[in-house]
Amino acid sequence: MGLVGIELGGTKCIVVRGDAAGIAERVVFATLTPEQTLGAALDQIALWHAEAPVAAIGIASFGPVRVNRQAADYGTILNTPKPGWSGAEVLAMVRERFACPVALDTDVNAAALAEHAHGAGQGCANLVYLTIGTGLGGGVLVEGRPVHGSMHPEIGHVRLRRAAGDVFAGVCPFHGDCIEGLIAGPALIARLPVAPVELGPDAPEWDPVGHDLAELLAQLMLTLSPQRIIIGGGVANRQPHLLARARKIVPKLLAGYLEPADAAYFEALICPPALGDDAGPMGALCLAAQALADAQGRP
Amino acid sequence: MGLVGIELGGTKCIVVRGDAAGIAERVVFATLTPEQTLGAALDQIALWHAEAPVAAIGIASFGPVRVNRQAADYGTILNTPKPGWSGAEVLAMVRERFACPVALDTDVNAAALAEHAHGAGQGCANLVYLTIGTGLGGGVLVEGRPVHGSMHPEIGHVRLRRAAGDVFAGVCPFHGDCIEGLIAGPALIARLPVAPVELGPDAPEWDPVGHDLAELLAQLMLTLSPQRIIIGGGVANRQPHLLARARKIVPKLLAGYLEPADAAYFEALICPPALGDDAGPMGALCLAAQALADAQGRP
Repeated sequence: MGLVGIELGGTKCIVVRGDAAGIAERVVFATLTPEQTLGAALDQIALWHAEAPVAAIGIASFGPVRVNRQAADYGTILNTPKPGWSGAEVLAMVRERFACPVALDTDVNAAALAEHAHGAGQGCANLVYLTIGTGLGGGVLVEGRPVHGSMHPEIGHVRLRRAAGDVFAGVCPFHGDCIEGLIAGPALIARLPVAPVELGPDAPEWDPVGHDLAELLAQLMLTLSPQRIIIGGGVANRQPHLLARARKIVPKLLAGYLEPADAAYFEALICPPALGDDAGPMGALCLAAQALADAQGRP
Repeated sequence: MGLVGIELGGTKCIVVRGDAAGIAERVVFATLTPEQTLGAALDQIALWHAEAPVAAIGIASFGPVRVNRQAADYGTILNTPKPGWSGAEVLAMVRERFACPVALDTDVNAAALAEHAHGAGQGCANLVYLTIGTGLGGGVLVEGRPVHGSMHPEIGHVRLRRAAGDVFAGVCPFHGDCIEGLIAGPALIARLPVAPVELGPDAPEWDPVGHDLAELLAQLMLTLSPQRIIIGGGVANRQPHLLARARKIVPKLLAGYLEPADAAYFEALICPPALGDDAGPMGALCLAAQALADAQGRP
């Protein structure tokens, strides 16, 4: 079908071609300036386009980014600490080179779409996709569609109840101990006595980390009532015991309030991704497929 | 058009007839047992039906209640402390008496629908409706439709960051100091030195209450990115200074993270309802109108 996906990340940009079912080929570029990075990506897409026409392009971008399709600045990066990227007109730069339908959403909303279509979120039209790595981000689907609203969710920066006695100040430059400042990679380096990979899964130093993750999950359950919460990213992938810890703590935090939910319920609700690091680029292909369908008037 | 709405509340049940534009007539019953309360409501609807055929019925119910239309127990009250109501098959009891289309959602989701259609949420397809009264509840619209998911949001029971130095234990029987346990009516009676109505709006004892509300609003903004947050209910109506306090504190909690938002932005974002206590029954009429449209295959 000739779809192209661009996952625009903070350190690298992955460009793939394929169809709604998956990735056929990928090329990776370092994320430098918008002109350098998107220039290289668009040159690659032009090469593919010369071989076989590109029908649509989807972009899964780091945020904050304007995702409202009706906005004049749809597809523009908003105020970001990343040098050179504030105000970068990502969608417009792609449209300037290619006349096909183009759509853009956040990287985490795109990953949520991919996990819903092909991965751990199949059958769950209301789901949350969390990534815990260098930062913490969350994508939200309601009835199978990404939640936008005023901007888009910024779940990484919610302030949650701290564990009793935990005085770690957090490392978020904006908020200190918001959830990203407590459990993303840089926070773990700051709060753990040794490097995270050197700390055994049973070490008690993981207790407050598991607690903080559980507070986030309980809060998401009470606010969004998701059918699934998929947790990926480098930290979650390397520390699978964190999901197990959170699954045990969440029911205690809810204190029996939500409908009877046993261990099997939480085991199914809170799970790792099925697509691994491919969720982002596959999500970009999902966005391309949807852009094509929209252009053709299909649902 | 002959629509009927039932707002089933914890202490009273309001039955209205009207059309999608508003309420023409209302009758109020005390909430006793399901048989007594719904029996009286259905007898009233039968009287109206004899005068002019009822085309559809919408029910805005207290929760927790099954709102998933595909579920076998759609419209059944789930586990509740309210005597006699756990397992009450509200929707089925209405359908037993009337053959017309019937739909049910939570009281707060219905109120959100009404404020979106006729009130303070016009033009805001992604919004949150909060009611702070005897309890604290929240309805959520995404793209104009109520959020359901696994069950439905239970925003009243989120656990938030406490204000520094505030040691009030909260009064929620499940969670102690969840947000309902901190700022709903019974919590105010427990935590304030005098009755809430006797405490002047500038009293410093309101400070932690305003803080707790602000924490909730910041959390909702980061998780749902709503275009509007409408706050009604007895406590909010009688203490309008709480909204003003929260509007000042929320930007400090966000610490400049969300896109540039000045005082005017927060003034528009956080607002009282336009429909007052009619949001619930008007929401029930919105549900009836949607049930009729669904039955006729209209969008």
